[in-house]
Parts: sequence; structure tokens; C-alpha cells
Amino acid sequence: MTTARAHTNIALIKYWGKRDAALMLPYTSSVSLTLADFYTDTTVVFDPALPADTFTLADQVRPTTKVTPFLDLVRAQAGLTTRARVRSVNHVPTAAGLASSASAYAALALAASRAAGLTLDAQALSRLARRGSGSATRSLFGGLSVWHRGHDDATSFAEALPATTLPLRMVVVLVNAGPKPVSSRALMANTVATSPYYPAWVTHNEAAAAAMIQALAANDFPAIGHLTEQSAMQMHAAIMAADPAFTYFEPETLTVWQTVQALRAQGVPAYATMDAGPNVKILTLAPHVDAVQAALLPRFAGRLMTTAPGPAAHILEDQ
Amino acid sequence: MTTARAHTNIALIKYWGKRDAALMLPYTSSVSLTLADFYTDTTVVFDPALPADTFTLADQVRPTTKVTPFLDLVRAQAGLTTRARVRSVNHVPTAAGLASSASAYAALALAASRAAGLTLDAQALSRLARRGSGSATRSLFGGLSVWHRGHDDATSFAEALPATTLPLRMVVVLVNAGPKPVSSRALMANTVATSPYYPAWVTHNEAAAAAMIQALAANDFPAIGHLTEQSAMQMHAAIMAADPAFTYFEPETLTVWQTVQALRAQGVPAYATMDAGPNVKILTLAPHVDAVQAALLPRFAGRLMTTAPGPAAHILEDQ
Repeated sequence: MTTARAHTNIALIKYWGKRDAALMLPYTSSVSLTLADFYTDTTVVFDPALPADTFTLADQVRPTTKVTPFLDLVRAQAGLTTRARVRSVNHVPTAAGLASSASAYAALALAASRAAGLTLDAQALSRLARRGSGSATRSLFGGLSVWHRGHDDATSFAEALPATTLPLRMVVVLVNAGPKPVSSRALMANTVATSPYYPAWVTHNEAAAAAMIQALAANDFPAIGHLTEQSAMQMHAAIMAADPAFTYFEPETLTVWQTVQALRAQGVPAYATMDAGPNVKILTLAPHVDAVQAALLPRFAGRLMTTAPGPAAHILEDQ
Repeated sequence: MTTARAHTNIALIKYWGKRDAALMLPYTSSVSLTLADFYTDTTVVFDPALPADTFTLADQVRPTTKVTPFLDLVRAQAGLTTRARVRSVNHVPTAAGLASSASAYAALALAASRAAGLTLDAQALSRLARRGSGSATRSLFGGLSVWHRGHDDATSFAEALPATTLPLRMVVVLVNAGPKPVSSRALMANTVATSPYYPAWVTHNEAAAAAMIQALAANDFPAIGHLTEQSAMQMHAAIMAADPAFTYFEPETLTVWQTVQALRAQGVPAYATMDAGPNVKILTLAPHVDAVQAALLPRFAGRLMTTAPGPAAHILEDQ
């Protein structure tokens, strides 16, 4: 029985679009920050007495339609046929709207592989997690990581980037905690298929990933922030230009972005990024967290969470 | 002394980006609807006693920095050196946020050329108006018109499209009547220079203009509406992807768009378009105006104006 913890991550340079849906190979490389306060704990035990896999999330029985194909990958690597019991708990503040498949599949990859007797290195774990959810490939790593798009299963993996000396912080603004109106997987495929801007997105975002790695190495926060906001807006612009036109943005998403732009105009280094939903994550530095929070409190009291970079996925218990 | 009236127009297939700023040649063709209830009346008299051009807007004296270079074009064509008195009044509901250079330069082109003794045909007038403001080139025409991008001064002009049998209506939703935070001319140039999506915009929008002309000829309102909304969103997506990222959308812009999407889900044919500002124009058909207004009234009472297609620019008085 093995319990693993993996933290969610927020892409600074976005991942949007698969060129191989079965292998989960992306069109572009991405760069992300793993977060301290949002994680998933998952326990896996392979038990010969089980007739089928079981899966609970926060002690609620859930379908195994996604978990079993993932466990099958682990079983194939380990030469096992035994079924497994999987128990997951998402440690995300109630209704944060951030419960993500990234931390879920990263924790499952680590717990299941170890429980199956495998000892996978970070690269192999990252490739395994990728098969569950693209963004999970980055959640094996703490702090900053890059997911190299690669060209096949063996070459598409994430790895940790050197730590920055910058005291990065992320202020999460909860705009809407409800379920997504459109699944990111379906919308991603529609963007690839119909957005006239998708080819330019691929070219430009790949160059942005390289520029971000340089900016991080140089501890150049204005460049890091600028690239972060540009990548998010270019992803959302590619989505908006698809057929049918659509946006994850809600009115308050723009309210937060306007606030971030006003903060910058006042000299506060803060940059907005949004994923497949209306919530906004604001990248800033520790000395400026108070200013960012103060600007948002009048409207978003009770809907702000500030977090720091988080650790790599790790084993909590192995017996 | 000649007085002319020209109505504003709303592009269904957008114009965004100049390949020649001096000649006002656009990168793409555009298709528009001229509106009945929004127009400019302009009176021009060439007076040998005047030492310099004068310009009043709603009886307020205004700078002639833009008017004089435009009048110089007319004087050059007419072989005149006389200065002119120009009086304009915008007939746009108070604070509608729609006071546009389109109707202004179309009315000025018609009044000034006639007052100078020129008799220009529609194509020549359209080319003249273009030099004042790109969108003015379409405001010489009533109902539907197309501005052919052309490849030089002689070939870039608008002309009327055949009238549709559809009872087109436009519901204008006033989100913000204040001045634009960013001039459209400056932002247009920045989109061309920095948006990675601009080349795809050009290719795609040009094809959309051709598709729109076909849809209009077929009186196919779902296709007309769909193309209208796509062109607007692709224009705003190209802007959002520029550097720095920016959007004219305000929170309520998205509120209106969400309402339009909900109306369509209920079977009401309504499509949103936005220009270089936060206000939303909803294209629908006469039988559905009540449903569109009813959906918006709870939030936008006093900020809705419904209008029908308007006439071509015409002379009101010539003495």
C-alpha cells in the first residue's frame, strides 16, 4: 500500500492542443509553477482478492472508467494483472475551482507505480503521468518545470528547471467555483480543428517557452510576468477565434484582469493567467502580495488564496 | 453651401488593419450594414473671405487638424484654393458611444465635393471618404455594402450589395459611453505589428467576406449571423493576442454576449458583434427584436437602441 502526494501546477507558458490524443503528445512545450497549497493524496494497493479496480474520491465511490486504463499502463509495465484499490483526496480549499487532473494523475502515477513494485525515475514517472492528463506530466516536479513537447512517447516528458531566486507567489482569484460549462479536452480538440489562429499559436508558444526558460534563468521578473500573461491571452484568443466562438472568461475574469493592469500601471509587478475556466491566477512576488490582495479585497473577499511554489511529488507512506 | 447626411455603419465582416496608412488601404475586404438611426449632417461652404478652414461640431468650435487635410484632397480635385466653413452635427442618441468617424467622413466627402463643384460618382466618393476614415468608405451606401480591399487607391472602394429580403435589425447595447481608453487607429497598427495571429486574420477574414456576400445573396440568416459573430470574435482575438495583450471587452460586454448565446440556445436568431469599444451590437430579425430586448432589459434598461438598415448618404440642401 503506497500513498503519494502531488501538487497541482499552473502553466506560465500554456499547454493547449494534442497532436496525439492516445499518447497525449502536445503540440507545444509548456512551463509551469507547482503550487504549495493545492495537492492530491492518493493511496493505491494492488490486492489479488479484488475482482475489479475500485476508486474513491474523498471517500465517495467513483467510476473507474478513467482510472482503470491508467492502471492498465502500470500493470503492463510491472507484469501484473492484479486489480487495485485507489483512494484519493484533493486538498484544495473548498470550492476553489482548482481541483485539477494535474495533481490527480501525478499522485496516481507515483503511488500506483510504487505499489506495483516499479521504481521509475522522474522522467519515466512524468511520461506515465502524461498518459492520464497532459498537465500531470509537470506535477511530478517542484517549483518550476518544463514539459518538452518531444516527438513521441519517449521524448515527451517534463523535468525540473533550476530554481529561481525570485520569491514567486500566486494569488488565486475565485471567479466561479462551478463545474466548467465545456470540458477542456473537447474544447482543446475544437481549437486545434477550427481556430484559424492555431498554427500561429503553436509557433509562437514554442518560442515563448524558450524565452521563458531564459527569463527564469536570468531571474527577470518583468519578462517572466509579461511572457506569462501573453501566453495566457494568446491561448484564450486562439479559443475565442475557434468555430463556434467561445470564451472561458466570465465578466469578473475581465474585472480581475483590469485590476491587474491597473496594479501594473501603479508599479506593482503582477501578471494574470487563466486556464480552462474563468478563475484568474496572478503571478507576483512576495513583497507585493499585500498590494495585490488589497486591490482585490473589496470585490473578492473570501475568494482569494495566495500560495507559494510547492514541492515535487513524493511518497507519504509505503508499507 | 451644401448639406449632406451620411449614416454610420457596423461591419459584419470586420476591417482591422491598414497596409497603407497614408492611402488608408486595408489588409482585408469588409462587409457592413448602414444603420437608420445614427447619422451625421454636415454643411460645407467654400468662402473666399475665409483666411482658414473652420470646423464646428454641434456648434462647438473644434480643431481643423483632421478636416483640413481632407478638404485639401477635395480642393486638389476641384482645383480650388478657397478655405471652407464646415458644420457637423452627429445625430446619435445621447452618449450612445457610437459617434463614429464613418458617418462623419462620408458626410464630409459628399458635402465638400458637391460644395466644391465636383460631381463624383459613388465609387469616387467612396474612395474620397476612405481617405478620412477607412470605415467611412462604406457609409456612402445604404443597407449592405462591401469594401473591396483592392490593391491601390483606384481599386480600394465600397459599393452597395443587393438588398436582402431579410428584415434585418440591430439592437445596440450601451455598455460604456465613455471615451475609448485606446484609440482604434493606434491599436490597429499595434495588432498588425505584434499579433502573431494577424496574418491568419487576413487570410481568414478575406474568405469570410466572400462567404458573407454569398450568405446575404441566399438570404441565409443563420449563416449571416454566424459569420458576423465569428468575424468580430476573430478580430478581438487578434487584438487580445497582440503585445501588450489588450481587450476592448468590459465585464458587461461578456454579460451581453452570454445573453446572446443563451437566446440562440432558446432558438432566437441573434448574433453579437463588437467594434473598437465595449458596446455590443446584436444582429437579429424584426420578429425577434422583442425577445432580444426582453432578455436584456433587466440589466440594460435605458441602454438599448434598436435600429433598421439605413439609406445611402444623400444631399439635404444644395444652394
